[in-house]
Amino acid sequence: MTSEPPASPTRRTYSFLGPAGTFTEAALAQVPEARDQTWRPVRNVGEALADVIEGRSDAAMIAIENSVDGGVSTTQDALATVPGLRIVGEYLVPVEFVLVARPGVRLEDVSVVAAHPVAYAQCLTWLTAALPEHSHIPATSNVAAAVGLVDGGISADAAIAPPGILKLYDLDLLAEKIGDNPHAVTRFVLVSRTAPPPAPTGADKTSLIVELPEDHPGALLELLEQFATRGINLSLLASRPIGDELGRYRFVIDADGHIEDERMADALLGLRRFSPRVLYLGSYPRADRAIVRYPERYSDEVFVEARDWLRGLVSGEPEA
Amino acid sequence: MTSEPPASPTRRTYSFLGPAGTFTEAALAQVPEARDQTWRPVRNVGEALADVIEGRSDAAMIAIENSVDGGVSTTQDALATVPGLRIVGEYLVPVEFVLVARPGVRLEDVSVVAAHPVAYAQCLTWLTAALPEHSHIPATSNVAAAVGLVDGGISADAAIAPPGILKLYDLDLLAEKIGDNPHAVTRFVLVSRTAPPPAPTGADKTSLIVELPEDHPGALLELLEQFATRGINLSLLASRPIGDELGRYRFVIDADGHIEDERMADALLGLRRFSPRVLYLGSYPRADRAIVRYPERYSDEVFVEARDWLRGLVSGEPEA
Amino acid sequence: MTSEPPASPTRRTYSFLGPAGTFTEAALAQVPEARDQTWRPVRNVGEALADVIEGRSDAAMIAIENSVDGGVSTTQDALATVPGLRIVGEYLVPVEFVLVARPGVRLEDVSVVAAHPVAYAQCLTWLTAALPEHSHIPATSNVAAAVGLVDGGISADAAIAPPGILKLYDLDLLAEKIGDNPHAVTRFVLVSRTAPPPAPTGADKTSLIVELPEDHPGALLELLEQFATRGINLSLLASRPIGDELGRYRFVIDADGHIEDERMADALLGLRRFSPRVLYLGSYPRADRAIVRYPERYSDEVFVEARDWLRGLVSGEPEA
Amino acid sequence: MTSEPPASPTRRTYSFLGPAGTFTEAALAQVPEARDQTWRPVRNVGEALADVIEGRSDAAMIAIENSVDGGVSTTQDALATVPGLRIVGEYLVPVEFVLVARPGVRLEDVSVVAAHPVAYAQCLTWLTAALPEHSHIPATSNVAAAVGLVDGGISADAAIAPPGILKLYDLDLLAEKIGDNPHAVTRFVLVSRTAPPPAPTGADKTSLIVELPEDHPGALLELLEQFATRGINLSLLASRPIGDELGRYRFVIDADGHIEDERMADALLGLRRFSPRVLYLGSYPRADRAIVRYPERYSDEVFVEARDWLRGLVSGEPEA
Repeated sequence: MTSEPPASPTRRTYSFLGPAGTFTEAALAQVPEARDQTWRPVRNVGEALADVIEGRSDAAMIAIENSVDGGVSTTQDALATVPGLRIVGEYLVPVEFVLVARPGVRLEDVSVVAAHPVAYAQCLTWLTAALPEHSHIPATSNVAAAVGLVDGGISADAAIAPPGILKLYDLDLLAEKIGDNPHAVTRFVLVSRTAPPPAPTGADKTSLIVELPEDHPGALLELLEQFATRGINLSLLASRPIGDELGRYRFVIDADGHIEDERMADALLGLRRFSPRVLYLGSYPRADRAIVRYPERYSDEVFVEARDWLRGLVSGEPEA
Repeated sequence: MTSEPPASPTRRTYSFLGPAGTFTEAALAQVPEARDQTWRPVRNVGEALADVIEGRSDAAMIAIENSVDGGVSTTQDALATVPGLRIVGEYLVPVEFVLVARPGVRLEDVSVVAAHPVAYAQCLTWLTAALPEHSHIPATSNVAAAVGLVDGGISADAAIAPPGILKLYDLDLLAEKIGDNPHAVTRFVLVSRTAPPPAPTGADKTSLIVELPEDHPGALLELLEQFATRGINLSLLASRPIGDELGRYRFVIDADGHIEDERMADALLGLRRFSPRVLYLGSYPRADRAIVRYPERYSDEVFVEARDWLRGLVSGEPEA
Repeated sequence: MTSEPPASPTRRTYSFLGPAGTFTEAALAQVPEARDQTWRPVRNVGEALADVIEGRSDAAMIAIENSVDGGVSTTQDALATVPGLRIVGEYLVPVEFVLVARPGVRLEDVSVVAAHPVAYAQCLTWLTAALPEHSHIPATSNVAAAVGLVDGGISADAAIAPPGILKLYDLDLLAEKIGDNPHAVTRFVLVSRTAPPPAPTGADKTSLIVELPEDHPGALLELLEQFATRGINLSLLASRPIGDELGRYRFVIDADGHIEDERMADALLGLRRFSPRVLYLGSYPRADRAIVRYPERYSDEVFVEARDWLRGLVSGEPEA
Repeated sequence: MTSEPPASPTRRTYSFLGPAGTFTEAALAQVPEARDQTWRPVRNVGEALADVIEGRSDAAMIAIENSVDGGVSTTQDALATVPGLRIVGEYLVPVEFVLVARPGVRLEDVSVVAAHPVAYAQCLTWLTAALPEHSHIPATSNVAAAVGLVDGGISADAAIAPPGILKLYDLDLLAEKIGDNPHAVTRFVLVSRTAPPPAPTGADKTSLIVELPEDHPGALLELLEQFATRGINLSLLASRPIGDELGRYRFVIDADGHIEDERMADALLGLRRFSPRVLYLGSYPRADRAIVRYPERYSDEVFVEARDWLRGLVSGEPEA
């Protein structure tokens, strides 16, 4: 596993939010196909997606949702506006935080804490109890806070960081599991250029971004009915401002199932007819590998049988 | 126009509720293809449909709904239970009644009136005012009442009959337009053996009989949504007991549009997936030739475009 | 039990479709309060309801639905158009038919059968098998056919009648249980002038007649949602033409529950706001005494609790 | 207008995100009742709400949504979890940014830019074009970046700040209107302790936070139907993770109308019956003062009339 090796026709390149040690790197480590390939650290989601679009990388790993903070707005907005992308996989990383300092610093010495704002917010209960007088300096990533301690770029006494940081830098552990929610997890997606979706596994998810056709009571209702009337459960429904004016939103949707499932294909057709803008982000295996359950009446066989029946009606065949 | 001519390979045969002079015959007279063909009078709907099924007739004209009395139960039940039929046309006949008697009888002489019970019910207001003391003898058809006067088979002084009766029999007109509702109309359908539907005209109707999958709050709702969510208006929704126990019904439906309209085909697929028993009775031109209106978003082009879009997604083509 | 006794302030009068021996009389015999009161036979539903409206009777028993034939159109239309009535009870009578003749006539002698057309239709399978050559003379009621045999008013050899006829007239039984459906049953309702509904029993039914506000896709859907969104099951939904033109219907509805149930009261409010014409026909105990089941979330307590909560919000009380 | 004056029984205190110069202060300046009262600057939303709950302030102004970035997660989560609060007003502040520096610094001298991360993201297009080589130092607020320039606490050459900063500090304007979206606006709400809602104005908004009763296809649909079936439009629907596990959300809702509007009261009753957790945040005048439009059938009179009608049915009064 190395960063930025010389290009090779047989190697694949994966962009991720660096530097080494981030949760995003931990997500990329879950991808079997990425082992022994080139991992390309970038500074933000925009860079990662640009790498994919412009061919510098084969795929990018990006954070899309956190169980405590919710959707990652910049990722959702980037996927909504950058064409030519496809989500091909999903990965979960438990979010755990440690408090670290330069060797010799003790907890009672800490008055200034460096932390990425999201990490800081997730550790606030612990910090308030353990360091009631502390002040906060924001950092651009969870790893950057720790690196700043090491290289002196940040004038803080301690930093909040992922546990893996201790293997990468010469830092002391002051406290561990300082996150407020012990079950916090971040969801990542692996994004490639537009390509056919991976084959259905029975435990798949389909991601979409949809704009409503007009602002009237019931438009969102109609959107959701496209799924409900085909027995499709949604695991995510988030709204993001389109940005042109207050009150106009697009909806980020994760639906249980694969585009090659008949009920999902039918729902997509319904959505497309309903909405002027439906962006299909991809169908891919769920990170938790949970088999999608649905009422028998929405199975592929039922759809196929109905089509055969309709064909017979039109051709005038006597009914069986 | 003759009844029961010798069979001929080039002639077609049409069954209708006889004898000559009935409203059903008036409906058959509206069928251009039936001119100069064989018209076969029968005694009831069962006989008419049996003629078609068993090949004695090419088609049968049967009454299906009256604007005052509602659906014709026997017709609806026969269509629901006799397989192998297809509705191919719809015809409207204004329902107008006259009071007739043998030559010489005057209105003030009338004390007993012969009439088919449905016709009698539709003239009750007039009869109560004009002949307050009359009594009623039921007849098996509107024409049979008049024929009974002529041949003495019914011991009545007058009969309620369609206006055309005066051209067929030697009877005097005592009163005309005696129906309570001057706009009353009966709807007839022409029924053939199962065959491909006539080509769409833009002013079509599709007839169905549907049983609900189970008795729970919302099953009928779900049935109706199959139409509403495709912009399809229903011109008829009637319930008929299935007959096995109280509270179990099948639904007789007329929907605006043709099975070859994309939105109707899609609704039929939805119905078939939803219900264990959907009987397609046919798609055919509406009697009133009124062009079917629907929101632009349900046009054929929108359906075709959505299918192309879906195909592109699955094949991994970059979006336009 | 006598017909037409002298009026008495302490006696109640009940109108029913006579003469003695009809299924309607059998329904009235199920009403405990009607025992030893005055039973007033009438010739049709219109007369029965006029008796109630004009004070000649306290209540009228009328047939409203048959498990084989469906809704009784004349009853449904009369209830829809005659104001000032309220259904106060429901009764079921099994429909069983016998073939009777004057003493001495044998089955093999029968060539002409008198029968009310509905009864005739319900016995057609048996008649076709047992008397393939018979012809049919229609009668105005099931009892009138038999009476016509006795008094010679109908020139038939046999009559279809209810089993009770043998206790009333000197007739011979030629065959019994000749109805095609052994489980056929007719539903009757007892109708009084407008009055408060009988107290809820937990096994109640509410009857309504509703016109849709306008003819657009989804109006009927919206009507049905008023029930479905309150967990209310419908045991009857029938359409009847309003009569002014083809394609305009009113809907006859039986809903599980009582107007004093919170969920039903709320549904009625929703209906009234939705539709220009909602006719409440009454809430009354179901004939089958089946306790109405509904999801716990639609119980009275939930409605009461929600109102208390809302009141607290408006008054600005801190939430518990 | 002063910060932190001595307490006085006749003065009211308003908490806001300080220091002076923030957009939040600009929102508070729109509140007529806050003029000449005590304005209390705080560091974050948690402090502002704690001030209100614990009685240090009468109300707090907090940012709730940005037209470009979407909902402010920390505010939404705080409102969802801190009991005893009520939104009493809404205010809009256009979001405009300037680039400032210490006197004498020119644009071409700038290599390091201090900025709150959200502000930085909103100016990225301009920065990339004007200062392609710059690097970014994050600050804790828009004003703190500028203050850091003045007091030397941040080692940057320039800062992104609101335009009002120039009146407060001795800084030079390097560039104005550098935000990527010229129409960007932030929505603020004024929050007090639980109290009766302000009187309806006809241009009101009702804010709610709702958890779904269970995770099944259609639960969200049912939630939305509570509004759609009463003609109520939603101006905001956002999902926020409940935080206990991935895939569990609460919904933040702004609905057009006031709790004292009959249709809104009815919708709230429906919501409460449907969901185990409905948090009412308040009804208050919309910032844009746009009169709420709704179909006539959802007017207060229709609700009142329906209740009168229902009352008459139960009491047994003859219908008018």
